[in-house]
Amino acid sequence: MRFTSERRLDDGVLEREFTLGEVPGLLWTPGSASAPLILMGHNGGLHKREARLVARARHYAAAYGFAVAAIDAPGHGERPRSAADERSRADLRRAMRAGEPVDDIVDGFIVPLVDKAVPEWRLTLDALLSLPGIGAPVGYSGMTAIGIRLAVVEPRVCAAAFFAGGFVPGALREEARRVGVPLLFLMQWDDEGNDRGRALELFDAFNSREKTLHANLGGHAGTPWFEVDDGARFFTRHLS
Amino acid sequence: MRFTSERRLDDGVLEREFTLGEVPGLLWTPGSASAPLILMGHNGGLHKREARLVARARHYAAAYGFAVAAIDAPGHGERPRSAADERSRADLRRAMRAGEPVDDIVDGFIVPLVDKAVPEWRLTLDALLSLPGIGAPVGYSGMTAIGIRLAVVEPRVCAAAFFAGGFVPGALREEARRVGVPLLFLMQWDDEGNDRGRALELFDAFNSREKTLHANLGGHAGTPWFEVDDGARFFTRHLS
Repeated sequence: MRFTSERRLDDGVLEREFTLGEVPGLLWTPGSASAPLILMGHNGGLHKREARLVARARHYAAAYGFAVAAIDAPGHGERPRSAADERSRADLRRAMRAGEPVDDIVDGFIVPLVDKAVPEWRLTLDALLSLPGIGAPVGYSGMTAIGIRLAVVEPRVCAAAFFAGGFVPGALREEARRVGVPLLFLMQWDDEGNDRGRALELFDAFNSREKTLHANLGGHAGTPWFEVDDGARFFTRHLS
Repeated sequence: MRFTSERRLDDGVLEREFTLGEVPGLLWTPGSASAPLILMGHNGGLHKREARLVARARHYAAAYGFAVAAIDAPGHGERPRSAADERSRADLRRAMRAGEPVDDIVDGFIVPLVDKAVPEWRLTLDALLSLPGIGAPVGYSGMTAIGIRLAVVEPRVCAAAFFAGGFVPGALREEARRVGVPLLFLMQWDDEGNDRGRALELFDAFNSREKTLHANLGGHAGTPWFEVDDGARFFTRHLS
């Protein structure tokens, strides 16, 4: 892991850019000597510098004392897209505009993404936990598909908060039955791109003994800010 | 309103019993000079002194600075039950044991209860708001059926947290469409006495622009304690 920049923000948080092999990432750490770690996954084509992700990450570090890391998944953010990536994205956009079923496209696009992204998250986790002041236990917050696989295969992840707003292939919906960590599942009640019934089915599928659903009125991008604090308190309960 | 007892609890909260006409109640107030008021409704045959209700009320007062009031609804707690009350309760128990539909019994039992209880809550509210140190805005927390009617007819109620664990007659489900205050709707995912789909339909029916659903794994009585804090923070957002 190589740090390529660092700056101290006015809320006292240290923001550092890093690369790990070909994976670029960002790390936010609070002033405190020791901080539990949250891995923050992001959705769709979004960048690790996406404004809402950065705002959440800084708030987690400044107000709750978490270390937070985000990386660009393969084909996302700063990373090159393959011709296959571009084709899948174009197919997905076309099918959504036409109101056609997207399940096959999602399966063909997201499953390989998860297959590549999860080992990268695990290598990132190894590197982050070797830094001074960052410690297990570890939480995952963000994109559901990557989070399901990570929660199943990575024993250091002890709690997960998923946003049910992304595409979740059938294979990952099956894997959800093997997720056992405490879970906060956040959905938008009127999400224009995601079927309400399927989101509720997915919540039902998780095997976690402690799982909580939060649903708020409004569309995909309308999650209210107070859910950021609810998420942080969920992690405080489980990672402290 | 006549206070009949008072004691100072070890968390600094003042607990007072009162009567208003034939209605007995409890009031918990924090040490602070001015406190927003939460009306705490309770379910089924429960008493205003029911242990979980009292624990919630004291925590709201001690940790969040709310004044909290509970009254016994007609036929509940200390109040006499009519022969009709006794018959309805017996019918309801028998139908539930036999796995028979309970909708008609619930309609015949709960609608008259709501018709009587809501005016009592409004008179109680008049009396409470005339006390020094207790002020509007006002929140309602608890039993859904009474809370729906109260939120529709009482403009001083500015936010409501409902527990979707009680019987809600069809007429009140219709009235839910006229509830417009910010809403926190709490349900147990595996509530043995309440159908999940109907609870979700009820959440959908409310007309509030801000409404949030919290669902937790487990049966009717299994609501985790952290929801008490979530509820208090909801009221802090809306009543402060």
